[in-house]
Amino acid sequence: MTITNDMSIKISPIGVVHSSITEPDGAPIQPVFAEGSEGIVEVFEPYKQALKDLEGFERIWLLYWFHKARKSKLLVKPYMDTTERGLFATRAPCRPNPIGISAVRLLRISGHKLYVADIDILDNTPLLDIKPYVPKFDHFEVKRIGWLEKAQSETKLADNRFFEKQ
Amino acid sequence: MTITNDMSIKISPIGVVHSSITEPDGAPIQPVFAEGSEGIVEVFEPYKQALKDLEGFERIWLLYWFHKARKSKLLVKPYMDTTERGLFATRAPCRPNPIGISAVRLLRISGHKLYVADIDILDNTPLLDIKPYVPKFDHFEVKRIGWLEKAQSETKLADNRFFEKQ
Repeated sequence: MTITNDMSIKISPIGVVHSSITEPDGAPIQPVFAEGSEGIVEVFEPYKQALKDLEGFERIWLLYWFHKARKSKLLVKPYMDTTERGLFATRAPCRPNPIGISAVRLLRISGHKLYVADIDILDNTPLLDIKPYVPKFDHFEVKRIGWLEKAQSETKLADNRFFEKQ
Repeated sequence: MTITNDMSIKISPIGVVHSSITEPDGAPIQPVFAEGSEGIVEVFEPYKQALKDLEGFERIWLLYWFHKARKSKLLVKPYMDTTERGLFATRAPCRPNPIGISAVRLLRISGHKLYVADIDILDNTPLLDIKPYVPKFDHFEVKRIGWLEKAQSETKLADNRFFEKQ
């Protein structure tokens, strides 16, 4: 089968993220800048059994849908810089497939609810997947981090630039 | 808006992964076990401009569609264990939304083609997104890694258990 841009793949939320971040403006731009910020990840009932054994992990990847992101652009001015960069060289939310990944701290699980910390995700965000954070798979030593090496801005908080007007 | 499991979200490939891994059987189960294995990530022409500035990054996240994965199950026996685990506590490909994440090494970019190494992705896999690997965002010290702490198997290669018959 030839893979093309016209193919349409369907996904559905497996849950929803509840957080105190109701506005992009002033939200932490990454979990590392969201220390202490707590939230609840509600996994829909049918998937409850798939949470077995997850509580043993200190950190988990959440994959989610940037439901408030603007239409994607090919070049964007990232929060942490003052120059336009190629979209794929940034973590901006307005992407062709606006899927976010965040490694959050798992505090505890109660039934089908995950209590998490270091959360940088907007309230009511559709959850797509949960994976354990495994240093052996996710932890790489890298020397080169492109434009971020001399990024002009120390910004740790978001603004509205990548989001639809409310 | 209430987020439910019935919502349908549409995504489309932004490119396709070319690799020498044509069969799940014997494939590396993670980039860390795929050292040296090279591949080409073809980004579709309309997105070429979004690759600007990416070459400065040593490692990149590829998000992709596990196109050959079996229907998801809530409990699975992972490659690295002999016991059934909750799906979300594993990195198995047969997920409700079968989206994979792999941090691969970026060797160079030529036009709309990315030459990558340490690739654990099947040939002809639909590509969904590319993000730079940023230690500050992706690198977390964790002590607890659940069942993986005493996983029973040293397996580094996949078999057919999570994939449709060819």
